[in-house]
Amino acid sequence: MNANVGSGTQPRTADSLEGRMLRRLLRGLGNPPIEFHLLWSGERVAATATGPLEHLRIADRRTLLGLLYDAQVRFGDAYTSGQIEVEGDLVKFMVALFRVFAPHAPESIASRIVGWCRRSRRNTLAGSRDNIHRHYDIGNEFYALWLGDTMAYTCAYYPSARATLDQAQTAKMDHVCRKLRLGAADSVVEAGCGWGGLALHMAGRYGAKVRAFNISREQLEFARRRAREQGLEHRVEFVEDDYRNISGSCDVFASVGMLEHVGPEHYPELGRVMRAALRANGRGLIHSIGRNRPGTLHPWIERRIFPGAYAPSLGEMMQIFEPCGFSVLDVENLRLHYAQTLRHWLERYEAKTEQVSAMFDEEFVRMWRLYLAGSIAAFETGTLQLFQVLVTPQNNNDLPLTREYIYPR
Amino acid sequence: MNANVGSGTQPRTADSLEGRMLRRLLRGLGNPPIEFHLLWSGERVAATATGPLEHLRIADRRTLLGLLYDAQVRFGDAYTSGQIEVEGDLVKFMVALFRVFAPHAPESIASRIVGWCRRSRRNTLAGSRDNIHRHYDIGNEFYALWLGDTMAYTCAYYPSARATLDQAQTAKMDHVCRKLRLGAADSVVEAGCGWGGLALHMAGRYGAKVRAFNISREQLEFARRRAREQGLEHRVEFVEDDYRNISGSCDVFASVGMLEHVGPEHYPELGRVMRAALRANGRGLIHSIGRNRPGTLHPWIERRIFPGAYAPSLGEMMQIFEPCGFSVLDVENLRLHYAQTLRHWLERYEAKTEQVSAMFDEEFVRMWRLYLAGSIAAFETGTLQLFQVLVTPQNNNDLPLTREYIYPR
Repeated sequence: MNANVGSGTQPRTADSLEGRMLRRLLRGLGNPPIEFHLLWSGERVAATATGPLEHLRIADRRTLLGLLYDAQVRFGDAYTSGQIEVEGDLVKFMVALFRVFAPHAPESIASRIVGWCRRSRRNTLAGSRDNIHRHYDIGNEFYALWLGDTMAYTCAYYPSARATLDQAQTAKMDHVCRKLRLGAADSVVEAGCGWGGLALHMAGRYGAKVRAFNISREQLEFARRRAREQGLEHRVEFVEDDYRNISGSCDVFASVGMLEHVGPEHYPELGRVMRAALRANGRGLIHSIGRNRPGTLHPWIERRIFPGAYAPSLGEMMQIFEPCGFSVLDVENLRLHYAQTLRHWLERYEAKTEQVSAMFDEEFVRMWRLYLAGSIAAFETGTLQLFQVLVTPQNNNDLPLTREYIYPR
Repeated sequence: MNANVGSGTQPRTADSLEGRMLRRLLRGLGNPPIEFHLLWSGERVAATATGPLEHLRIADRRTLLGLLYDAQVRFGDAYTSGQIEVEGDLVKFMVALFRVFAPHAPESIASRIVGWCRRSRRNTLAGSRDNIHRHYDIGNEFYALWLGDTMAYTCAYYPSARATLDQAQTAKMDHVCRKLRLGAADSVVEAGCGWGGLALHMAGRYGAKVRAFNISREQLEFARRRAREQGLEHRVEFVEDDYRNISGSCDVFASVGMLEHVGPEHYPELGRVMRAALRANGRGLIHSIGRNRPGTLHPWIERRIFPGAYAPSLGEMMQIFEPCGFSVLDVENLRLHYAQTLRHWLERYEAKTEQVSAMFDEEFVRMWRLYLAGSIAAFETGTLQLFQVLVTPQNNNDLPLTREYIYPR
């Protein structure tokens, strides 16, 4: 472990059995522009000799065999431990990898059933608390290193490609508030409030009264401190509880970046909670990572980074709204905004890896680098989407005629 | 038949068996604000005495029993024949009716299976041709009486509530073209082109090259004549063929108001046709009547007005896009625009009923009046929706960052 890979020996033609097998495999995968450097033998293996290549160094035969056995999980683990190393730009490499492998990895029915069983066991009240704790409670100081001032850990909204991360996160909050036609008379329920940025923005900028739910204690402590600092404790209540326990009524129901942790088997339940909370002319918005068709999250991400997480297709998201009397007003796909957000996060992260290494260790640094770079690639290649879905109770006619109100002049 | 209902006799308390049964039924339905006038006995029956009432006159006992037996179909037929008459405003009455009955009419699994079997038999290549012929080939002169100059027979887009019908239909075409980022270099395939308004607009206003498909011969004759009149025959080709036979490639695939006639069992097929036609950076738009949850069309409408038609939920629409490599970029619900469009159509229709009666007969006049008024009520009460769904092939990154381009300053 942590055996970082040195420079390879002189390149020579591949002729070993493993080299020939690897080349055949790469041809079967459509000649990805990737060259493998097998450091123990000095071989360089690529399916194609034309065009620019991304380069992957593999430390030992055991790592190669692991990749051949279960590339999806072993790649991430071997990168984390340093048994494989990417030469040059990691994001470019991951984009090349996704372009090749994403279309070749349709999900089998069996793996889907297994996935569903695991999730339904996991996202119970107790399971969710554990899953959320494992990702979000690893330290506010860690996230503060690279998330920017807003501490928003969800897709930002870039009015122009030149916007900074903080500008784009603030623009995202305003974009959400405008879609919801938020006003000072409105009461809001937020399900899954992160470090409280949106709740405080809704109260501070729009004068709304917000109850914001979260089951991450670390995040709530941070959010409550910010509320006191900004003098907003009387207008924002941060509640340590699960979305399933939300009660009372509201004009606006917002959930930005929580659905990924709900699990599709709980979507109708989330819909019932939303419907029970929203008044007749209320507005609801769910912002979530999604997919173009149903499928599980990348298994390495689900195992090492986001336990219990699932990114739904738009059709699957409709299981929140269709069974219980909602009308979908508007869906927007912000996929390219998430690629840009992640680029900003990775850039800031890379500038702070010394501190990250001191907080955790070098393997953690590499694991999170891969997660961020791989996520850029996933959104860049259309493997993942970002859906914002705006809904209202089905009988509500108190609606603007057009969406121009979202785009003020 | 055609026995128009005269004024009722003096009101008196209901005391007959049928009167008591009717009142009990109305109470069970949540006290709808409707009073029944039973003309053969002079009884007036309402569940509630408070608040303003809509009034329904029923000519004879047989009609009442028919309503109790199968209200959904018999109501329309009895209105058509004149056995029942609505006092005062028909739209107001229909809105009251939908408010009461829509939530009480969940579709049984059995009726859904029956509906699906009927549709799958019907929307074959030959079945579609027959279904389309029955509605759209009843005479261009008839539709020209009330559709306005654009001859668009789909939901318009009202930039403001004061827009005229023709303004709103033109605005709809521009709204669609802007969403699709249509330019002079683009080739377009339109599936289901009606009287050719959008195809001619795309060619005439945007300079695009359009192939527009339709299986209604009457509509195509009209469209080809308009193309000649506007000097656009070299840029718009009107093809008499089914959407399933579309071949060749295009930059833009548009279908406005055809999906209602496709049938959900053919959605994956439509998706494959779209995907095969669209180039890698192409854009597709489907504009369709929809619903908040799956369910069949109102049985009277399906039987008498639109044979073989079906309005999908958004989740069902995803069966077009999810199986075959599309990414959904944008969904807009224009429900209230369709209520307004239909109000304009009904107003024009009512001004031309003498001509309609001369073309057909008085029963036809009443049947179409009920269809238009009922449709206003369906959109007004949220029983029906109107979805515009914008998609692109999943790997296309040639996308505008925000939707501001749809809303020019």
